[in-house]
Amino acid sequence: MRLLFPALAESSEVYLDSASTTQKPAAVIAAVQGYLGARTANSGRGTYSWATRITRDIEQVRRRTAVFVGAHPDEIVFMPGATAGLNAVTLSWGLANLRDGDEILYSPRDHASTVYPWLHLRDILARFGRRIRLIPYRITELGEADTDDIAAKLSSRTRLIAVAHLHHVFGALNTLEELRGRLDPAVLLCFDCTQSGGHVPIDVAELGADFAVLSAHKMFGAPGTGVLYCSRRVHERLDPFLPGGNSGVEANSVADMPDSSLTPGPMPERLEGGTHNIPGILALGAALDMLGQIGIAAIAEHNRLLTRQLIDGLRPLPGLELSPGPAHAPCDIGYGTVTFTLRGIDSTDLGFVLADSGFLVRTGAHCVPRPSPGSVPQSADDDSVRVSTHIYNTDDEIDRFVRCVGTIAREVRP
Amino acid sequence: MRLLFPALAESSEVYLDSASTTQKPAAVIAAVQGYLGARTANSGRGTYSWATRITRDIEQVRRRTAVFVGAHPDEIVFMPGATAGLNAVTLSWGLANLRDGDEILYSPRDHASTVYPWLHLRDILARFGRRIRLIPYRITELGEADTDDIAAKLSSRTRLIAVAHLHHVFGALNTLEELRGRLDPAVLLCFDCTQSGGHVPIDVAELGADFAVLSAHKMFGAPGTGVLYCSRRVHERLDPFLPGGNSGVEANSVADMPDSSLTPGPMPERLEGGTHNIPGILALGAALDMLGQIGIAAIAEHNRLLTRQLIDGLRPLPGLELSPGPAHAPCDIGYGTVTFTLRGIDSTDLGFVLADSGFLVRTGAHCVPRPSPGSVPQSADDDSVRVSTHIYNTDDEIDRFVRCVGTIAREVRP
Repeated sequence: MRLLFPALAESSEVYLDSASTTQKPAAVIAAVQGYLGARTANSGRGTYSWATRITRDIEQVRRRTAVFVGAHPDEIVFMPGATAGLNAVTLSWGLANLRDGDEILYSPRDHASTVYPWLHLRDILARFGRRIRLIPYRITELGEADTDDIAAKLSSRTRLIAVAHLHHVFGALNTLEELRGRLDPAVLLCFDCTQSGGHVPIDVAELGADFAVLSAHKMFGAPGTGVLYCSRRVHERLDPFLPGGNSGVEANSVADMPDSSLTPGPMPERLEGGTHNIPGILALGAALDMLGQIGIAAIAEHNRLLTRQLIDGLRPLPGLELSPGPAHAPCDIGYGTVTFTLRGIDSTDLGFVLADSGFLVRTGAHCVPRPSPGSVPQSADDDSVRVSTHIYNTDDEIDRFVRCVGTIAREVRP
Repeated sequence: MRLLFPALAESSEVYLDSASTTQKPAAVIAAVQGYLGARTANSGRGTYSWATRITRDIEQVRRRTAVFVGAHPDEIVFMPGATAGLNAVTLSWGLANLRDGDEILYSPRDHASTVYPWLHLRDILARFGRRIRLIPYRITELGEADTDDIAAKLSSRTRLIAVAHLHHVFGALNTLEELRGRLDPAVLLCFDCTQSGGHVPIDVAELGADFAVLSAHKMFGAPGTGVLYCSRRVHERLDPFLPGGNSGVEANSVADMPDSSLTPGPMPERLEGGTHNIPGILALGAALDMLGQIGIAAIAEHNRLLTRQLIDGLRPLPGLELSPGPAHAPCDIGYGTVTFTLRGIDSTDLGFVLADSGFLVRTGAHCVPRPSPGSVPQSADDDSVRVSTHIYNTDDEIDRFVRCVGTIAREVRP
């Protein structure tokens, strides 16, 4: 498996940072190279075959992506990334639809890309005298969204619940299924599937998602491409997003333009102004093919086994504390992410020592919104070591990693 | 020269659509492949060497880009594209700073990416009861922004003038130098340098630009990456743009977050939330190196000669009408773009015939905001053939192209 990923094939390091970005299979690299190196053209514009072929290829990837998440092709919007996708939700839906007093439920311990767009939207609306409320909900010690807390905080003004499908630090899966049937259908659900994409099956219908975002570079694709799923249910409520060439937006008339509004174009073009990231989208297509060949179920099982191996290996080490997540669950779950701290050594320093030993992990605050300078860190996710695995990691690598952490743990033991 | 561009080296077609996207040199393809195929990591996050090297490389491209346009590195913002860059101007500056009655001067005959963001911003502001006015200015028969018309339309409420540095259909250069000294320094200038980047030297200080955007894929780079120049003069007035991980935005406190505003981070991170398009930015670096090696002056002279050859060859053909642009200028100027129509044949059909003969050109409305369905086309840019050249085109290609158009012109002559 490692041989399918050129960067791994030629290195001796153990890559345990797939939650930051995955390594790229040869087929993905070939797709990018194929575009840049042969018959390069722009999409959706030219009428000659170099251009029309690319337009066709992009729509093929759109259909492929739709199948991947169980959606219709017109519900799949290509984005510059997952962050842009989440901002499209706040700007295209939120800015156009939220009224004074409306409420959004969110977790302040989610990734900044899930949190900041809402804070930013609230600031924009406040400037115009419109107040929305961002209601934080709790995370359980399993690292999961606390659905009881969410249920308790629902009100007649709740408009949307933002949730990480798979949490980027805690590695816990959230489907909100406990809320199924208890939610007013008018309450929209926005799933950040950045970490779950390529790790577990995603079915937007089963999730009841109105919005969902994917990050291509975290599922074997290239940085610069994300996917925003927008359910047809919400299409007519969406404003254009970053409009430009090919965004399908029609001014009412050139002559009238000084005084006329933009008429939103059809979906998904309404949210896709400007030139597509063509190599990025073609890379996503190749990545989805590769995920399909390996099988998401096989990846999920592989990651589950490695996660359990990590948890079982790390748990007994002296001074080691496992962050909220599957490590605290009564059953053998796990999705490829384990986070921990080690007493006696700062996580950043621990990361350096691990890197020196050939283990590449992520350390620090993991893009969780940080407290202001000077305040006391409030939880392990403020400074911790995150280990994240994927299909190319082996049990031998995990074994060596656990032994390395064990050696360090014994050395730094106060 | 053609051999440096793999897609051209292996094809017999004549690529005359560089204003849509340029072909990619081998060095650019190698930069992308080098990232995807070796030591892939995320930037600005990990502390291990795979990651820190990429963070360093990206900042190196930022410095390289700053030198390219005569700016400081903190004035260079990486964007998903030029369209996103122009929308960042409207959302980060416009939405935060425009007041009731403020005015923006723009050309409705510019690219949709320069026009639609303003129409969209006006719609957003109008929703909150804030009215801004978009004042259209004229284009001369040389295809240039009519500076007399702009001067006549300036008022005490003018806040910004949006202009295409090099027009994407007319191929005319706009520096607004005739307005130098006549403009209130409080009036901001936003230059769309999408077409001029890599064609003519760009010096943001000389242009007096407050904002300027570049499109990497139109200057030998890859789609999915643009550059937004923001003068330090305007930094403190900018809101965050699409905030997320690494956007440098600090919530005042995690505990306070439910009620606190986002504190904008430093520039340029304030406008750069989320994972960078790393391969796209590295490709831009390689593209700038390549442009530097060839020399912008050499490219400009090459395009000027090819443009004149096109104009001189096309002008005498029966039924051929040259759109506004350098063709109508009294002196021998030209920047690589010539647009025309041919009586007796629809431009789209003409494009197909040309493609059959191996000449790849752009036809149609060229992303100029379209009139509403059913209305009469108002100008040649509603439906025309655009020929655009670059360093890899030869005078022999232009010669063959002109002869081909000549043959068609004689065949369709009524």
